Amino acid sequence: MRIGYKVWLENNGKAFGDGPYELLKRVEETHSLHRAAKEMGMAYSKAWRLIGAMEKRLGFLVIERKVGGFSGGGSLVTPKARLLMNHYERFRRDTKKVLDKIYRKHFGPWK
Amino acid sequence: MRIGYKVWLENNGKAFGDGPYELLKRVEETHSLHRAAKEMGMAYSKAWRLIGAMEKRLGFLVIERKVGGFSGGGSLVTPKARLLMNHYERFRRDTKKVLDKIYRKHFGPWK
Repeated sequence: MRIGYKVWLENNGKAFGDGPYELLKRVEETHSLHRAAKEMGMAYSKAWRLIGAMEKRLGFLVIERKVGGFSGGGSLVTPKARLLMNHYERFRRDTKKVLDKIYRKHFGPWK
Repeated sequence: MRIGYKVWLENNGKAFGDGPYELLKRVEETHSLHRAAKEMGMAYSKAWRLIGAMEKRLGFLVIERKVGGFSGGGSLVTPKARLLMNHYERFRRDTKKVLDKIYRKHFGPWK
């Protein structure tokens, strides 16, 4: 037996969680929502809907669209979204560590 | 903003969680799976399927069928299931306490 769990942030519905985090992380790495969605096997239209829902619930923009220029545009993660990601990374590390510990405390000797 | 979460026990799939706990708790109180299911707005057939899946994944019986007698039969929670419920109650209290604390630590001052 083992523990199963999901954690997320709520604000009038699910505002942020592992899926949104992973999407933003890949946007940060690829500078492209298109590539980020593709890497996750997600339709581009779905990725945009996810970003839109996230921004509405968080109350700020998480992606900035760079238009034209030498590199031909692309997407950037906003500084406020990066800050949220920093908090979320530490929050997730703590939840994992602590939930594993609580599970072992109560179910470690379970037969 | 606030934290959202779900926790459960896994053993080749979801084996036990808040829904199964609540169902068994009501069986314990009403001595009847029929009444327990009804109180939760759940079809009796669905309650039986849930019990079956739970028993298969946990590897032991959680409900004992009392047949006939003065009270006309009914359902009882097995001692092993009650023991699991005891562990689960403490496990859930701890997860709630600790997850609320971790949320406040990382997102308490979030603007």
